[in-house]
Amino acid sequence: MNPLLEALWYILPAYFANASPVIFKGKTPMDFGKKFKDGRRILGDGKTWRGFFGGLLAGTLVAVIQYYLTPNFYGSLAMALKLGFALSLGALLGDLIGSFIKRRVGMPRGYPAVGLDQWGFIITALLLAYPIKALSTGQVLFLLVVTPFIHWGANIFAYKMGWKSVPW
Amino acid sequence: MNPLLEALWYILPAYFANASPVIFKGKTPMDFGKKFKDGRRILGDGKTWRGFFGGLLAGTLVAVIQYYLTPNFYGSLAMALKLGFALSLGALLGDLIGSFIKRRVGMPRGYPAVGLDQWGFIITALLLAYPIKALSTGQVLFLLVVTPFIHWGANIFAYKMGWKSVPW
Repeated sequence: MNPLLEALWYILPAYFANASPVIFKGKTPMDFGKKFKDGRRILGDGKTWRGFFGGLLAGTLVAVIQYYLTPNFYGSLAMALKLGFALSLGALLGDLIGSFIKRRVGMPRGYPAVGLDQWGFIITALLLAYPIKALSTGQVLFLLVVTPFIHWGANIFAYKMGWKSVPW
Repeated sequence: MNPLLEALWYILPAYFANASPVIFKGKTPMDFGKKFKDGRRILGDGKTWRGFFGGLLAGTLVAVIQYYLTPNFYGSLAMALKLGFALSLGALLGDLIGSFIKRRVGMPRGYPAVGLDQWGFIITALLLAYPIKALSTGQVLFLLVVTPFIHWGANIFAYKMGWKSVPW
């Protein structure tokens, strides 16, 4: 496989984990409506338990499907599961850290943070997956460059499909 | 040298290039006051020619000083100059792209873009320096994690020193 295609194939579970809470929605917020010491919500209503576990499941499932399509890329199903889970958990944790930061600087829910929204989740995903299977430096830099464009494209698509109320 | 310290040593010219326009200031904006087709400024008054060339010079000079402190790290003065120049140019281009994006989404000059301000310049710096001397994947991930904290710390320092009017 071409190294750049390989990088996109590698990161796919993180993209799905990051995107799927839009589909799963859910009601119970992960912060249970609690406020931080600054008087603002810890994470906000946008981060739900259902979205979190749905994202984790969706991302890991994507890796399993990928394993059956390209078994050699993963080596074993256990490896695909581990990598898919780490990438999904990393993407979701990055998104939660992003929400936490956005609330601390006073941004309302769903307000776009240019840069944080596009790079935050992928950096944490790459970080958590790194001990399991690492990309090369060039592949990491490639993903950092293309992810904002893929993120924007996916959000506009989700908006046009009526899955999101705003195009970001 | 420890690989993580080595990564910080490697990126130092980019940090200096990114920070120095605060010191150099300057008057003539790089967009010459021109507006983009959306009616907003192309880059804004914050990006000046003096700041750009000052940053390029400062960053490259830092690499030269680094070469005399750790000649083995660079191998040759030519290598230090090339790497310092690429890192500085990358950091400054990333900052300009960031300003362009901020103006397009309607953010005023100096308004913080969480994520873009901290990661934009370092990704372009790493990208331009990559063909000259590349870090490992682990070193790149380390820099992506620590740079926001260093960026925030440096900005608060510059604010307390009276070099900046806002602490971001």
